[in-house]
Amino acid sequence: MIDLIKDILTSEPKGQTIDVYGWVRTKRETKNLVFIEINDGSCFASIQAAFDRENNLDENTENVLKKISTGASVKVSGKLIPSPAQGQAVEIKAENINLFGNAPVENYPLQKKRHTFEFLREIAHLRPRTNTFGAVARMRSQMAYAIHVFFQERGFQYVHTPIITGSDCEGAGEMFHVTTLDIEETVKKALKEKCEPEKFSIDYSQDFFGKQTNLTVSGQLEGETYATALSRIYTFGPTFRAENSNTTRHLSEFWMIEPEMSFFTIKENMQLAEDFIVFLLKWALEKCGEDLKFFDERIKPGLIDTLKHVAETPFTRLTYTEAVAELEKHKDKFEFKPYWGCDLQSEHERFLTEEIYKGPVIVTDYPKEIKSFYMKLNDDGKTVRGMDVLVPGLGEIIGGSEREENLEILQNRIKELKLREEDYWWYLDLRRYGTVPHSGFGLGFERLLLYVTGMANIRDVIPFPRAPKLAEF
Amino acid sequence: MIDLIKDILTSEPKGQTIDVYGWVRTKRETKNLVFIEINDGSCFASIQAAFDRENNLDENTENVLKKISTGASVKVSGKLIPSPAQGQAVEIKAENINLFGNAPVENYPLQKKRHTFEFLREIAHLRPRTNTFGAVARMRSQMAYAIHVFFQERGFQYVHTPIITGSDCEGAGEMFHVTTLDIEETVKKALKEKCEPEKFSIDYSQDFFGKQTNLTVSGQLEGETYATALSRIYTFGPTFRAENSNTTRHLSEFWMIEPEMSFFTIKENMQLAEDFIVFLLKWALEKCGEDLKFFDERIKPGLIDTLKHVAETPFTRLTYTEAVAELEKHKDKFEFKPYWGCDLQSEHERFLTEEIYKGPVIVTDYPKEIKSFYMKLNDDGKTVRGMDVLVPGLGEIIGGSEREENLEILQNRIKELKLREEDYWWYLDLRRYGTVPHSGFGLGFERLLLYVTGMANIRDVIPFPRAPKLAEF
Repeated sequence: MIDLIKDILTSEPKGQTIDVYGWVRTKRETKNLVFIEINDGSCFASIQAAFDRENNLDENTENVLKKISTGASVKVSGKLIPSPAQGQAVEIKAENINLFGNAPVENYPLQKKRHTFEFLREIAHLRPRTNTFGAVARMRSQMAYAIHVFFQERGFQYVHTPIITGSDCEGAGEMFHVTTLDIEETVKKALKEKCEPEKFSIDYSQDFFGKQTNLTVSGQLEGETYATALSRIYTFGPTFRAENSNTTRHLSEFWMIEPEMSFFTIKENMQLAEDFIVFLLKWALEKCGEDLKFFDERIKPGLIDTLKHVAETPFTRLTYTEAVAELEKHKDKFEFKPYWGCDLQSEHERFLTEEIYKGPVIVTDYPKEIKSFYMKLNDDGKTVRGMDVLVPGLGEIIGGSEREENLEILQNRIKELKLREEDYWWYLDLRRYGTVPHSGFGLGFERLLLYVTGMANIRDVIPFPRAPKLAEF
Repeated sequence: MIDLIKDILTSEPKGQTIDVYGWVRTKRETKNLVFIEINDGSCFASIQAAFDRENNLDENTENVLKKISTGASVKVSGKLIPSPAQGQAVEIKAENINLFGNAPVENYPLQKKRHTFEFLREIAHLRPRTNTFGAVARMRSQMAYAIHVFFQERGFQYVHTPIITGSDCEGAGEMFHVTTLDIEETVKKALKEKCEPEKFSIDYSQDFFGKQTNLTVSGQLEGETYATALSRIYTFGPTFRAENSNTTRHLSEFWMIEPEMSFFTIKENMQLAEDFIVFLLKWALEKCGEDLKFFDERIKPGLIDTLKHVAETPFTRLTYTEAVAELEKHKDKFEFKPYWGCDLQSEHERFLTEEIYKGPVIVTDYPKEIKSFYMKLNDDGKTVRGMDVLVPGLGEIIGGSEREENLEILQNRIKELKLREEDYWWYLDLRRYGTVPHSGFGLGFERLLLYVTGMANIRDVIPFPRAPKLAEF
């Protein structure tokens, strides 16, 4: 089998013969020595191969050494030895090199010079070859794995909720339509038949699914159906919002994690959310040291300290009413003046976690008017058992709630909000048959990645970002 | 924290006080004893709670015991003791019971009697509460986790390739369109403006992404961009086919796993595929014993033996040419007569693995005409380095290949197949800059689940199936 550089770099150098496969990062020459840094993306570090021209290199090796430049793909064979150079434990006393493919200096877009993230977004197919995007990709993979480990170790079942949905009752945002209708042909046909504009309507029974369908905005409602059968489940899949938000914080396609737990009240829900965030940050600190160090040094100074601080600080719990009372004491600090009933703005959330409590905060019991219909109504009739988890440097990272498990109250909320009860028949069935207290929350995966990498633009923490007017590749 | 029944069932019964949360499966009464089976979906087994009426049960408990029936959600408190009954190690000497919600006998669709899978598909929101679909859900979760563990332990990075794609060049099947255009409004507007049918065309610059977009049919091409930066990657996400196939083997939305490895030739690719299948089957046998036993007894007798056999038998490797020669010896056995150049049919695949080789088989080097443009062309100019992995009882479970890494040959293949080279600019860039030998394969997650559960209909191994005219929930 082929060795990865991350494994070679941590092997004991005993002069053993090895083959290294990867891409050339740099080439340096001194008198008789040629040094090549080879990276294979399996870790941040490259490995150095040193060729000594006094050792009768073969003709192919001489030719390749002349020809190669940054980006060339090679196989280097030699002996693994302790490195005399600083900053690396091992290097390769190289014997020969084979070239798979060069990356011509005159065309290859990724020369050694620094590129802007804007430029790299246009070559999203090549950007994982850079230090920054290689590190982002590895951290994305590590954090995804951490999420599975966390839930699987705690008896949660992973559930794939549907991507194409026939229900448009999730209410979390604008939706993309999914269709196999040929729109142009549909228009042409109507024009040929000289239909009356007022009377015209699309016959969706002719569409693929026999009805209008959309891309999901959340798997929560379907997730609840599985939680009320298997006790504890989580989803981890793509979700979609067709909002025309061209910002550094929004994507049209993003991945979401939504655990849902039967028999959990908001109390256990808060504890799980806290344990989850702490687990993820510790995982990042333990498993992604090299990549994190890069982000800390080059992207966001202080990043590692922030992550450590959050991982080690108990999460403060307070109600929305208490939070607003605190914020009102600092009214002059805000562009948007806080008052009971207002939706907390990012500036408020960050002030709570960064200035007042100086650590992670969970705010609960929001006014029902600013939260979703499915959140459990408190006895006061005014607030619901929602919760938002806020962290310093970001604001909201998790939103969740205990769910309304009482059939009648839920039906009333649906009526109040002028939703159509018949759209929720199956969701209401969960309250008709063996209803249970249950809770859950959602974590936007890319928001987590912004947090652990310190990257500023959400388009840079997903391989191929989708946003208004942006669907390349 | 709340204990799961799977943990309680494996605890040492020392008379400790415990609370059990779950749904009532059955209730039985003898003279003074009431037995309730409680299931929480965390495992196949239920736990038995025994109430002794001679022990002065409180009034609420007496009332609840009278009232409850199958499907009711309860909390039972009592002491965990060794069970005197056969077939269970522990039971609860119950002290009291609280009812969260009943499931009225007159309405609850899941009474004790057996239901057909067809009927259960119509109540997909409740079916995970049954033995069969609970077991399917747990195995689905376990197999998904096994996939992550397998790749993460081997240095693969998990990559999320895009779901909405702007390129329609994947060529693997019919696609769903994604749009925010209001089709009905578009038609009405054209009618009002009395456009000429022949001249009419949709202005996709007005659509959300400024162009036509579709749901992905495969993440492979995008996966290759990351494999040629990080060496080894895998995808695991939803994919879509808009084919009008109303069969027990096709879904319109299904999950796919696609690993892609730089520097792997077809040889290492075959070994990885074999290791992968063996790992997954062993994982199922080790971690899903109880659920597998159910499938073996009730759904597909012999299932466990088949899985063990495949996990323990080295995979036979042979070329397509050899396979056809073998099949031609048994011509009379087939509806569709095999000949060199034909696409192997399911009957041929199953004959190879079940009758001729009596074990898993990997067939390689198919005629280029029946395989995709990106497969590496062999020196004979006629065959490509594709590979299909066949297993007894199913046929093809994995399809893959070494990829064409030579720019010119790939361009020629694109031309030959009358594809448009400009659609593949970024894919071809991978061959322009530091090209490497690389390989990969795809595994349909639901096909794997059919295999490990023995279920017959693919709509029964995904929570909410999507198929022509089917997009409920």
